[in-house]
Amino acid sequence: MSRIAYVNGQYRPMRDAVVNIEDRGYQFSDGIYEVCEIRGGRIVDMPRHLARLQRSLSELRIAMPMPLASLEVVIHEVVRRNRVNYGIVYLQISRGVARRDHAFPSPAVRPSVVVTARSLNLEKNEATASHGIKVITTAENRWPRVDIKSISLLPNVLAKQQAREQGAYEAWFVDRDGFVTEGASSNAWIITKDGIVVTRSADAGILPGITRTVLTEVLAALQIRLEVRPFTPQEAYEAAEAFVTACSQIVMPVVAIDGKPVGGGQPGPIALKLRQHFHQFSAFS
Amino acid sequence: MSRIAYVNGQYRPMRDAVVNIEDRGYQFSDGIYEVCEIRGGRIVDMPRHLARLQRSLSELRIAMPMPLASLEVVIHEVVRRNRVNYGIVYLQISRGVARRDHAFPSPAVRPSVVVTARSLNLEKNEATASHGIKVITTAENRWPRVDIKSISLLPNVLAKQQAREQGAYEAWFVDRDGFVTEGASSNAWIITKDGIVVTRSADAGILPGITRTVLTEVLAALQIRLEVRPFTPQEAYEAAEAFVTACSQIVMPVVAIDGKPVGGGQPGPIALKLRQHFHQFSAFS
Repeated sequence: MSRIAYVNGQYRPMRDAVVNIEDRGYQFSDGIYEVCEIRGGRIVDMPRHLARLQRSLSELRIAMPMPLASLEVVIHEVVRRNRVNYGIVYLQISRGVARRDHAFPSPAVRPSVVVTARSLNLEKNEATASHGIKVITTAENRWPRVDIKSISLLPNVLAKQQAREQGAYEAWFVDRDGFVTEGASSNAWIITKDGIVVTRSADAGILPGITRTVLTEVLAALQIRLEVRPFTPQEAYEAAEAFVTACSQIVMPVVAIDGKPVGGGQPGPIALKLRQHFHQFSAFS
Repeated sequence: MSRIAYVNGQYRPMRDAVVNIEDRGYQFSDGIYEVCEIRGGRIVDMPRHLARLQRSLSELRIAMPMPLASLEVVIHEVVRRNRVNYGIVYLQISRGVARRDHAFPSPAVRPSVVVTARSLNLEKNEATASHGIKVITTAENRWPRVDIKSISLLPNVLAKQQAREQGAYEAWFVDRDGFVTEGASSNAWIITKDGIVVTRSADAGILPGITRTVLTEVLAALQIRLEVRPFTPQEAYEAAEAFVTACSQIVMPVVAIDGKPVGGGQPGPIALKLRQHFHQFSAFS
């Protein structure tokens, strides 16, 4: 079955899903995006993702291109047309099409909206979780506004490629002060030998992940202690467990960092427990 | 006359010039660009621009999508079809179209190539130069790899917009140490009261501008002393002259920085002289 995308008011086969070359998303990375998990054909935590989308747009002063309720209808329709039971839906909004000039078009143009969806292999992802993933660390080299979920992702691309070439799946950025900020497409967590879960504050140098936020609620419900503070790669090497969170991965155990096994090189019991309980705390739309 | 763009092997009217929504330029800003001036229908300093384009591609490990000679033919053809006598030609190359995944597509896909051209108003630009432009300063917030001319330009967009809203045309970024790096789309220069031209080293925190490089040759030929070193906004406020260089602006006098008049608020004589002599040192293709 060929995939169907929503592009600026039309549902089109993927190969015909196009935008103008003067779309500011293409020439300036002047746009934002969101990714939501799909489970049982329903969207996981959509209201939180749409709230963050609105915040990203607001920070860049891009107008919301349609009422939120209409966008929700489009999201559901894209999922339906692609017959996705388990997978992800991707939304991208750019400032729109205008003759190339750095400053915002004046008067403003209509923002461009793209929504796609695709199936993922649940069994394969569960198998990955049962083995865990490897991460590397790399120097933080993104701009400071990583709190905006923008499509200005070139540093993330290069970090992910670096990870792959070193046999790992994710790269954790390390700031000038020697602390892990977050992964190229996930938030970073460790669990100390005392069973305390540690992750960096969402106020400083990271994207406030939706999965991260929900997980803090899971931790509270399961009465697992959380310390919100930065940690170093060295502390992570010596941790009892480590994991990453992202909507397409939920809680994904990390079994090696920079080639050093973490937690004996096996997914940790707390990470697996959090993964197992996660969706009890999610909202489904 | 409607504008014509070259897109992946075809010459198309601008409104039909499109790329797939999964072009990595659109989803990841995973691509590079160049802009060349057109004078008398000829391309200014094209070999230098194409050499920089090849370097940018090489740094991102994007393959050169066609032989250089073919790209030159396309550039000339786009200029010809758009009947541009004075203006700019824009080239963009992205890593190509692939299902969304941060790491490079494996196997590699064909890079996407876009070439557009448009006329500019020479009289208007000369009038702008005769009055000079205003600049503001803003905190440097770009990633460190600004030596790559990538389309990851969101910080530049925001800086340019900030300048416009403050009644200025350009924004100069100021690094953590308090020194000007460069403008959002130009290199920054001052001239001391002793007549020494000052600009930052191309090795540290800036894009090595082609116009900047040519200008160093103009300075040598005119026996004007150049100091390659960083300068602060304070030194710029008190300078005899200031100007920016960019291929679409050549040498553009700056008459105010952060609302403070520079050189009595008039374009300086050295800047105007450099502007006048510049094209004697350019190569025309």
